Amino acid sequence: MKPTLGGVRHIAVSLLLAFSCSVGAKPADPLPSWQDGAAKQAIIEFVHATTTPTSKQYVPPAERIATFDQDGALWVEQPIYPQLEYCLDRVPAVVRDRPELRDVEPFKTVLSGDRAAIAHLSQDDLVKILEATLTGMPVEQFQSDVRQWLATAKHPRWNRTYVELTYQPMQEVLRYLRANGYKTYIVTGGGQDFVRVYAETVYGIPPEQVVGTAGGTSFGYDQDGKPFLTKEPRLLLNDDKAGKPEGIHLMIGRRPHAAFGNSGGDRQMLEYTSAGAGRRLAMIVLHDDARREYAYGPAQGLPASHVGAFPQAIYDQAIRDGWIVVSMKNDWKRIFAFE
Amino acid sequence: MKPTLGGVRHIAVSLLLAFSCSVGAKPADPLPSWQDGAAKQAIIEFVHATTTPTSKQYVPPAERIATFDQDGALWVEQPIYPQLEYCLDRVPAVVRDRPELRDVEPFKTVLSGDRAAIAHLSQDDLVKILEATLTGMPVEQFQSDVRQWLATAKHPRWNRTYVELTYQPMQEVLRYLRANGYKTYIVTGGGQDFVRVYAETVYGIPPEQVVGTAGGTSFGYDQDGKPFLTKEPRLLLNDDKAGKPEGIHLMIGRRPHAAFGNSGGDRQMLEYTSAGAGRRLAMIVLHDDARREYAYGPAQGLPASHVGAFPQAIYDQAIRDGWIVVSMKNDWKRIFAFE
Repeated sequence: MKPTLGGVRHIAVSLLLAFSCSVGAKPADPLPSWQDGAAKQAIIEFVHATTTPTSKQYVPPAERIATFDQDGALWVEQPIYPQLEYCLDRVPAVVRDRPELRDVEPFKTVLSGDRAAIAHLSQDDLVKILEATLTGMPVEQFQSDVRQWLATAKHPRWNRTYVELTYQPMQEVLRYLRANGYKTYIVTGGGQDFVRVYAETVYGIPPEQVVGTAGGTSFGYDQDGKPFLTKEPRLLLNDDKAGKPEGIHLMIGRRPHAAFGNSGGDRQMLEYTSAGAGRRLAMIVLHDDARREYAYGPAQGLPASHVGAFPQAIYDQAIRDGWIVVSMKNDWKRIFAFE
Repeated sequence: MKPTLGGVRHIAVSLLLAFSCSVGAKPADPLPSWQDGAAKQAIIEFVHATTTPTSKQYVPPAERIATFDQDGALWVEQPIYPQLEYCLDRVPAVVRDRPELRDVEPFKTVLSGDRAAIAHLSQDDLVKILEATLTGMPVEQFQSDVRQWLATAKHPRWNRTYVELTYQPMQEVLRYLRANGYKTYIVTGGGQDFVRVYAETVYGIPPEQVVGTAGGTSFGYDQDGKPFLTKEPRLLLNDDKAGKPEGIHLMIGRRPHAAFGNSGGDRQMLEYTSAGAGRRLAMIVLHDDARREYAYGPAQGLPASHVGAFPQAIYDQAIRDGWIVVSMKNDWKRIFAFE
């Protein structure tokens, strides 16, 4: 279609208006939930240094990879990992389908609802619960179960769904990096299939950019000859500690330029990121805000925690190696979008 | 900057010119190396149906995933897979580093240079060669070895480097799909780390969009405390046959809307792709052109081949299920860019 002169004039006026509106306006703060301080400045300087074409530390768009731990780095992980809560909540449905498990441990304890007893289940018991609730079903069935749970399950402290408990400052970092050509990835010890269900709507991160602990699937056909995949208990990637850089290599194949974590499980990912040539950014969130969220370490004298432990040695390493420690209490103006 | 009225007029004129130039011009053919025919038409209709917003078969950009086998679908796989040639060529260097292998089979046979004897090595022998040449070294060392080999090794028939032997018609399909918002992936039985070395420059496909047979790596530190990854013989994903949809789930997490293969190893990927809801495209290349490339089946009475076998049963399934069989001889005007 050949545009009329009137059409062209209309385009010109629109352009003029668009230009005029931005004249004199202060550039919008990309990180409004962050206090002005060293952490915020480090993020902004990193983006500026790696995306300004004349910068000596310029990184071509294809190599702009940023990786984020999820539990405790993007959303609340206390008092227990949300995915573990999902698994416990699924036990009644699993036992309905497999009644032979009703009087067998650890399922009996989970069905009793005794939170103190559940909290004392052994690692082996937890593995049995994870296997029974995360494997053995078609991929689509699992995705639909998770979707349903996310829509209804509530966090005991805030009485809000888990997907509402993402950290607003980190959502801003995700968006800011993407607006500057970075591909943002989740690299989580949590289940890859679990996180993929909501990462796109909650974080703007598509399934193919979620790296997590992953089991195998098996390809087969249903009674109508239609192919489908079943989730298997065979572990392919334990995406924690050394498994994080190994998972990054497997799933991304490039070393990140920026990485964000919050616990000892993120140490190797931060080391691997920092060791690359050129400008790199390594950040680690310290949960030191019991009033607005939680306080746990044991770094810096904070209470120890089985969930998301942040040892003093990692804190010391961060200071020594120039990683940025983010204090939730001092660096974040606002923690949740609903505040 | 507030643009002057003159500036706006300039923009308006530029727009007008841009519009005018396209008026009456025939749109460029996106697939010039394809003969006009059913295969070419199927690709163009698929793209039109899935990317036109008013189409009932419209696919949102985030879900536009297309997967391509590599060997025999994107580049020449005869007389032996290029990666296997790489492994054989690497044996002398491996034996230099590990002299104890010199008089041990299968390395002794490979060092003899006797092609007939090499062609008769058993599957177990090949596995030993793959292990010795593809694992045990730091990831960066491997990448650099592959890069060097690709720059110098020549295909015996054309006396050209392997990366020159990609199929021009398929390069056009890759570009055409990407120009229409599709993310293009390689899903290959070949080594993920091997293909990632050249996929970006050769096919425009970045490392994170290469899914292939993958082994584990192990994270460690060098003598200076610098972290690095070593390639391990532990197989994580055998990305062939049923392993292709399993690999797609592991690495992408979405079902492709289009898939391209050329052998029995691609059957499950094509089935999995076709079984999705909405419009899907499944294509399979038949090598029936001994003059310009190779002719092998055994489908349609073509000579049988150990490399990239295309059984008659897959041909029949393609016809029955509406997959498009691409005849290299009849559908491709040109095979290589250098022609």
